[in-house]
Amino acid sequence: MSRILGIDPGSRITGYGIIDHDGREMRYVTCGVVRAGNGDFPLRLRTIYEAVMELAETYRPDMAAVEQVFIQRNPDSALKLGQARGAAICGCVAGNVAVAEYTPRAIKQAVVGKGGADKSQVQYMMRVLLKLPAAPSEDAADALAVAVCHAHHLGQQAAGLAGAR
Amino acid sequence: MSRILGIDPGSRITGYGIIDHDGREMRYVTCGVVRAGNGDFPLRLRTIYEAVMELAETYRPDMAAVEQVFIQRNPDSALKLGQARGAAICGCVAGNVAVAEYTPRAIKQAVVGKGGADKSQVQYMMRVLLKLPAAPSEDAADALAVAVCHAHHLGQQAAGLAGAR
Repeated sequence: MSRILGIDPGSRITGYGIIDHDGREMRYVTCGVVRAGNGDFPLRLRTIYEAVMELAETYRPDMAAVEQVFIQRNPDSALKLGQARGAAICGCVAGNVAVAEYTPRAIKQAVVGKGGADKSQVQYMMRVLLKLPAAPSEDAADALAVAVCHAHHLGQQAAGLAGAR
Repeated sequence: MSRILGIDPGSRITGYGIIDHDGREMRYVTCGVVRAGNGDFPLRLRTIYEAVMELAETYRPDMAAVEQVFIQRNPDSALKLGQARGAAICGCVAGNVAVAEYTPRAIKQAVVGKGGADKSQVQYMMRVLLKLPAAPSEDAADALAVAVCHAHHLGQQAAGLAGAR
């Protein structure tokens, strides 16, 4: 059984989602969002950093997975998103959790079977896959999707190893 | 006497510079660079984060100052720089050091007296102001310049308070 912390970082709202995975089945643990507020930027980064570190310490995930973002149209948004992402990754580091990265396309492909899926499809699939009573919020669903993508990746690795025997 | 840690974050090379400041005089403590290498990005962020945290723990600065970057032409560079900046700020947070931000223009204005000064002028002025035997490297000089800018700011605040009495 391994526990995966998925993170969808943002300069205002950072989504998180935690699942357990035993190579075949996935079990929902928790999900939610961290609101970094509108204050000074270093203060916002601190909020993200400390919240992620606390999640790592509370839930003791074996691994974290973060969405890898390549293209942003606006350089100023890219800089802000980059800082939020850096803070989230450092929160994992501080909580002794290694970090894997997945592209948005790989994540959508893993959870919806289509690289160009929209947000509502991701929310719907998280509800179905993780047997939730209602769809999680967009940011929390995106974070769960990164965790599910990582679980698929681990499952495929395990299958590959078994096949090679 | 207050001790200031200046940081010039970069995704490959992060400069740092530490000075002591008693409201009138500045004294050089140390400067250098952190090389984040060419590995996985989370690993590079970890290197920056841990190095800054270690600097904070070793030298116990009262305050950190980081260059605030607004405009980057290339969104991909902006994202990378943002992450490095986020990691450096989180290293300060982890070391219990509050962070101030200054624009590149304010920094150059404070150390060279001209917002549009070039890098070699900053290196030269750091050598003169801090009575160094040789000019520091570009990145270390930029980091010292942020620290000097913050010292000026504290000095002006102190003068303002004295004048208001």
